[in-house]
Amino acid sequence: MNKGRLIVFSAPSGCGKGTMLAEITKDKNYRCSISATTRNPRPGDVDGVTYYFLTNEEFEDKMDRGEFLEYAGYCNNYYGTFLTEVDPYLEQGINVILEIEVKGAMKVREKRPEALMIFVVPPSLKELRRRLEKRGTESPETIEKRLEEAENEIPMAIKYDYVIVNDALEDAVDDFFKVMETEKLKAENSHELIGKILDTK
Amino acid sequence: MNKGRLIVFSAPSGCGKGTMLAEITKDKNYRCSISATTRNPRPGDVDGVTYYFLTNEEFEDKMDRGEFLEYAGYCNNYYGTFLTEVDPYLEQGINVILEIEVKGAMKVREKRPEALMIFVVPPSLKELRRRLEKRGTESPETIEKRLEEAENEIPMAIKYDYVIVNDALEDAVDDFFKVMETEKLKAENSHELIGKILDTK
Repeated sequence: MNKGRLIVFSAPSGCGKGTMLAEITKDKNYRCSISATTRNPRPGDVDGVTYYFLTNEEFEDKMDRGEFLEYAGYCNNYYGTFLTEVDPYLEQGINVILEIEVKGAMKVREKRPEALMIFVVPPSLKELRRRLEKRGTESPETIEKRLEEAENEIPMAIKYDYVIVNDALEDAVDDFFKVMETEKLKAENSHELIGKILDTK
Repeated sequence: MNKGRLIVFSAPSGCGKGTMLAEITKDKNYRCSISATTRNPRPGDVDGVTYYFLTNEEFEDKMDRGEFLEYAGYCNNYYGTFLTEVDPYLEQGINVILEIEVKGAMKVREKRPEALMIFVVPPSLKELRRRLEKRGTESPETIEKRLEEAENEIPMAIKYDYVIVNDALEDAVDDFFKVMETEKLKAENSHELIGKILDTK
């Protein structure tokens, strides 16, 4: 059986990354890893489902024991990905998606250069503003902050492998699966295929 | 308007490359370049359609004047691609396909590193033998020679960008167009896209 592929998925807030991932993981060959964090649970959070909630001491203890593929500090909290959320699934042939921000993504690329790095962008900053305003969950100040963050993050897209524009959800999800399919056609991944063809005289 | 993409298409004889290209070029955004050769025209050949037929002297004269993107000797004849078969079409936004063998392909890669290199393989050597025998145009000796050539050429596929298995024609053509679409999603080609997104606050 082929191993699964490790996929890093980054996007500015409001790009519809969550909706895309909900669509993608309807395919049981894909799984989003569950992150660990020291931030306080919010209403709706379920330990072990939305996040693994840890105390600072627990988190640092697990850091010392090398239990994370990557971790980073963000807004005075730790966020990290347990190795146990990744490798056992890859071994089973399941593609594991890490939904992480740019800094964590670059750490994963270093440790796992074979990871497929995908950055999702909005069709425009104007449209991103419209979406954030429509969502209606954030104050005008927070919306301005999100837009500023997006403006800083979007240029980082060139450090990834692929950039997918999430304009219409269905097209963006289609693009994702097309990327996954053509990745298999890459010559650098074809040693086994070539061996098989030549083996059948 | 975006420039067209230069595409190199190689495949062992009998892989159905011609049929694939006939399908692909039904899309008017794609064009196969017409090669020049010093070999004698065969029944069915039309000068300027199947090939540009040149004398040795004419070919060498054009070589000296730098009129070729690539040329190579093969079975005591020259084969080459005129620059005029490539650049004017790329400028018009048309994707130009060069149907050439491995040696010529590597020369194109050197001169035009942005070229997209595609290698088409049969599902197996056994199936390739079946197809060559079914075609019924070649002697048993020629079939053996073709299979031997295929066996030598197929490992060269790893020097290309993508390897497409031509098992069912329709799937192989689909794979080709998927490659073309995901190439546009590559982060390295996204500078312009990112500029546009950021330009619309």
